[in-house]
Amino acid sequence: MASILCRISKTLVNHLLPPFTKGLIRPMVTLSWPFQSQPRDLSLPNPSWSKEMLQHYELYNSQCVGEDGKEGSGPWRRLPSYNRLLKFATGGVLLSKIIQSEARLFTRNIKIPGAGFEYVMFIKKSQEKCVCIFQAGHLLEGPPGHVHGGATAAMIDSVNGTHATYVCGPVMTANLNINYRNPIPLGSTVVLESTLDQREGRKAFFSCIVTSIDGSKVHVESKALFLSISMSRILGG
Amino acid sequence: MASILCRISKTLVNHLLPPFTKGLIRPMVTLSWPFQSQPRDLSLPNPSWSKEMLQHYELYNSQCVGEDGKEGSGPWRRLPSYNRLLKFATGGVLLSKIIQSEARLFTRNIKIPGAGFEYVMFIKKSQEKCVCIFQAGHLLEGPPGHVHGGATAAMIDSVNGTHATYVCGPVMTANLNINYRNPIPLGSTVVLESTLDQREGRKAFFSCIVTSIDGSKVHVESKALFLSISMSRILGG
Repeated sequence: MASILCRISKTLVNHLLPPFTKGLIRPMVTLSWPFQSQPRDLSLPNPSWSKEMLQHYELYNSQCVGEDGKEGSGPWRRLPSYNRLLKFATGGVLLSKIIQSEARLFTRNIKIPGAGFEYVMFIKKSQEKCVCIFQAGHLLEGPPGHVHGGATAAMIDSVNGTHATYVCGPVMTANLNINYRNPIPLGSTVVLESTLDQREGRKAFFSCIVTSIDGSKVHVESKALFLSISMSRILGG
Repeated sequence: MASILCRISKTLVNHLLPPFTKGLIRPMVTLSWPFQSQPRDLSLPNPSWSKEMLQHYELYNSQCVGEDGKEGSGPWRRLPSYNRLLKFATGGVLLSKIIQSEARLFTRNIKIPGAGFEYVMFIKKSQEKCVCIFQAGHLLEGPPGHVHGGATAAMIDSVNGTHATYVCGPVMTANLNINYRNPIPLGSTVVLESTLDQREGRKAFFSCIVTSIDGSKVHVESKALFLSISMSRILGG
């Protein structure tokens, strides 16, 4: 299926990209669906979301609104999520070498709602915390009836990595150290909480705890190290 | 789609199950496809496999044949792989609580050949090594044009976990500590080599190294701890 390259509006760009990129790049988006003018935000509720997932989503979403009643002026910010990476140009030069029309973000590669990773992330504007509400679909099985350790690792890497990108700019995962405490039942909703522990030059240390939705059970605890890198390193330059 | 429960032949069972289960259980298989009498082994070559993947597959496959020319009498053994977990009965009692007709193994959940995880594992009969040849499809993207760290973690957990199961019997991952050295390009074929480092009671320590197919580049190095558990713990009993 041929992809469509189209420019997107400045408003949408500001919503899509991490703060450090603002004003530096001229974004373009490769879309997967012909005739679609804007990418679909996959972190919004869909019919597969459980009652617990919706309730927790509302809990954080309500904190994106400030005391003045304005959307976006609260202490938290919902992060949109797409199944394609942004393709962009700097100084008018299209970095076409990274365009792979069929490539899809690993954690958004299943189209059937509820079958794979359903999740939404919120970041605290003060940047020390990032939270993800994650509902594990039936295609993520590892041990019978439970989530694969690799699927949990993928979500932890995504949440810590997103958090690191907002705090530090472009980063790559250097280390991920995961302690699995209690397996996560397939179909359940859990909460991942990412914390910025320390920064030392190019290094940023994060931790993550994965708990049941009510916080009563710890499923996983992990530590991660991210390294700041240049944009050209990410793009393979 | 309704699933089909069917008994499978003793020969197939011996091929499917780890050695420790032989004679202990009476296996049944839940199949995903109506009218299909046997599960499809997804670790056999398909048209999406690269030349490098096929060459490396043949390299290990040829070592599954012994000097006597007999299949299965060589030092290595190819491990078949399916997209469903085996459902089985002990003492005639069907453990129906674990049957989730739609659940699929995370690393085998994408039906399009070459789009997700393409892999085949071989275990050395002396059990100290397990090798996996892995071709990363375009649906596993993380950083632009490269494999998601979580997808790599999933393959490491799978290879170490399979190795641990053959060495120790039923296990669960307790810790996974991954050092990412060089990102893996999407579409490339890499080799994962799992090594049994140490056993201490219920604990088994493994390491894994992920290299380019020619061994010249180290992509990832990791350590893992697995804990032996009872079969009833895995089945949620």
